[in-house]
Amino acid sequence: MIQISQRGMDMPSSPIRKLASYAEAAKKEGVKVYHLNIGQPDIETPSIMMDAVRNTDMKVLEYTDSAGILSFRKKLAGYYQSKQINVDYSDILITIGGSEGILFAFMACLDAGDEIIVPEPFYANYIGFAMSAGIKIIPITSTIESGFALPPIESFKAKITPKTKGIFICNPNNPTGYVYSEEELLQIRDLIKEKDLYLFSDEAYTEFSYKGKVKSTLTLEGVEDRVIMIDTFSKKYSACGARIGALVTKNKEVIEAVMKFSQARLSPPTLEQIAAEAALSLPSDYFEATRQEYANRRKTLISRLEKMEGVFCPAPSGAFYAMAKLPVEDTDAFCQWLLTDFRKDNATIMIAPASGFYTTKGLGKNEIRLAYVLNEKDIHAAMDCLEEALQQYPYRLSI
Amino acid sequence: MIQISQRGMDMPSSPIRKLASYAEAAKKEGVKVYHLNIGQPDIETPSIMMDAVRNTDMKVLEYTDSAGILSFRKKLAGYYQSKQINVDYSDILITIGGSEGILFAFMACLDAGDEIIVPEPFYANYIGFAMSAGIKIIPITSTIESGFALPPIESFKAKITPKTKGIFICNPNNPTGYVYSEEELLQIRDLIKEKDLYLFSDEAYTEFSYKGKVKSTLTLEGVEDRVIMIDTFSKKYSACGARIGALVTKNKEVIEAVMKFSQARLSPPTLEQIAAEAALSLPSDYFEATRQEYANRRKTLISRLEKMEGVFCPAPSGAFYAMAKLPVEDTDAFCQWLLTDFRKDNATIMIAPASGFYTTKGLGKNEIRLAYVLNEKDIHAAMDCLEEALQQYPYRLSI
Repeated sequence: MIQISQRGMDMPSSPIRKLASYAEAAKKEGVKVYHLNIGQPDIETPSIMMDAVRNTDMKVLEYTDSAGILSFRKKLAGYYQSKQINVDYSDILITIGGSEGILFAFMACLDAGDEIIVPEPFYANYIGFAMSAGIKIIPITSTIESGFALPPIESFKAKITPKTKGIFICNPNNPTGYVYSEEELLQIRDLIKEKDLYLFSDEAYTEFSYKGKVKSTLTLEGVEDRVIMIDTFSKKYSACGARIGALVTKNKEVIEAVMKFSQARLSPPTLEQIAAEAALSLPSDYFEATRQEYANRRKTLISRLEKMEGVFCPAPSGAFYAMAKLPVEDTDAFCQWLLTDFRKDNATIMIAPASGFYTTKGLGKNEIRLAYVLNEKDIHAAMDCLEEALQQYPYRLSI
Repeated sequence: MIQISQRGMDMPSSPIRKLASYAEAAKKEGVKVYHLNIGQPDIETPSIMMDAVRNTDMKVLEYTDSAGILSFRKKLAGYYQSKQINVDYSDILITIGGSEGILFAFMACLDAGDEIIVPEPFYANYIGFAMSAGIKIIPITSTIESGFALPPIESFKAKITPKTKGIFICNPNNPTGYVYSEEELLQIRDLIKEKDLYLFSDEAYTEFSYKGKVKSTLTLEGVEDRVIMIDTFSKKYSACGARIGALVTKNKEVIEAVMKFSQARLSPPTLEQIAAEAALSLPSDYFEATRQEYANRRKTLISRLEKMEGVFCPAPSGAFYAMAKLPVEDTDAFCQWLLTDFRKDNATIMIAPASGFYTTKGLGKNEIRLAYVLNEKDIHAAMDCLEEALQQYPYRLSI
């Protein structure tokens, strides 16, 4: 039999894929499963987006410009300008989700064998994009005890080799919910300047901060040609299925190179670009309501977790994720048990074991990631499940 | 200043990108430009597709399964079965256009440094996907004199090295319009079996054949685990902007590996999958009308070209492209001149120089590719332009 590629073998499976089949089985039995495992918000997609698609009178569903629809790019530049980010449309390329933006950034800036430093835990799919691009992720561990703050900048310096070409951060962070402070960002800025590195920044959750505005890496002075910011409409507008993102940089050589990768795949999806462009006409207070909703959920989630014996959850200040340490040895086994063996009033919860967010072997084994993408009533019900499950779990550790 | 990657530099620009700015300039002057340069059909997208999107009542534009919507995959399997192709939904992964299908096939089956053999001229973007995957395309030249038939199978054998992992064909062919005969396909089948290779097959234009049914590589017996077929909704349903394609193979290891790349990018666009699924409910005679329309255009185009002195165009039997040899030394210069200097009744045409479809240096310099994606009246007007342009062109060769 003919062989698949080595990278096809090495490519990691989704860390929650194995669990998904257990969740399916539970649902087939009629069990209610509360999904706190993925970043799929339940917030309604703004009707202005769906209406824009419904009202289009196009006769031929044509390719758009490979860079994205021009009027859309211009409006998106206006959105950034309204946040004091100094970019124009020519600094922006529309991508097929943030996912493609990350892959294109790697392809355009890095060669096979190059290294980037990423604070772990980090969004598991970065590994897939790194593997696709043939580059290596060097993790620097942030700890739950510090609330997942940026590790000391010296630990970054210690990992820099001649192959290091960049640092990659996610701010606000998925999976930790941590928001980097201005001081931390300035430390990173000084380092990339000193060591001649790129700074890749995933800012998917920038509208969701519960302690003030998030500083975009695009506003860091003196490193304008080194910053590649990746954005997406998925979380901001609860439009994950639209697959519309953006790569933003003031570095014109990078834009030129990314443009060549964009041309090879011809065009982002046309209808969803129309939807995303419409979202930019939402009133400026649109995010207030969603932010308030997430803030309430966060408060509920954290206060419930705080009351559970042996559970430690540093309050996240952004995104809609929280990491928690549980009194169990192996959350992979615990999360599976929740789906296969545990029921409370014929319900259970699905949560993501944290091991998939670390690349350093053995880390995160007693941690989970919770996505607070359910309404408060459901979060309470889910926390009722977790609370009771931790009492019933036969392999609970005594702390 | 920080450097972009070597692959970012090596990545080829779109061969017609340079011309696009001249076309824009002409249009700004009020000149009518007939576009025969790209495969963007003018046929109306079936209203059933747009209506399916309009009528959706989803409140949250969610991710779909990374493999694509299940009911869509099942209907697509039914479409293939109706064409006597023996696949079920588990052999099908929905991709973001045929483009992503090709990239994922390369990623899952080939490692950096591996080689694939591709008859040239070939679709220029294959180079971009090969470069993204770090693999090498080894061209085998087909000639306009032979109508771009498959080169002798011995010429393939002569190019096989220990690094050769596959053969890649496009059938019906873009840019040549050639449809491979069953005999040619059986020669390829025997070769991939003998030499332990994959067969990648881009069958985007399979519904557009003007000399009988196209044989899918998925029906080749004895190589079921070696064939990776790439399909797309772009051309069949005139829905290029939907960015919906499919990777189809009976090789379960390849499906598993591609699935991991699919999971990393989460989901194909949701709304466009809904549109594409709806297209599969079109009556079975849907393609008759479009095929007849393209057949008429083809006849018009070919008969006009045949009457032009010094022009040679072998009649294509599929897709909606024709390659023609012109009595000029350098079609890149000629195609530019058409946009910058030539006008007939305040109109001109934009066509693709063929050099971008060859990787062997110097080939295709006197050839062009014509996409007959305009109605017959416009094709006549475009041919009026070409005919007169060839008479006026100061660098015309005397043949």
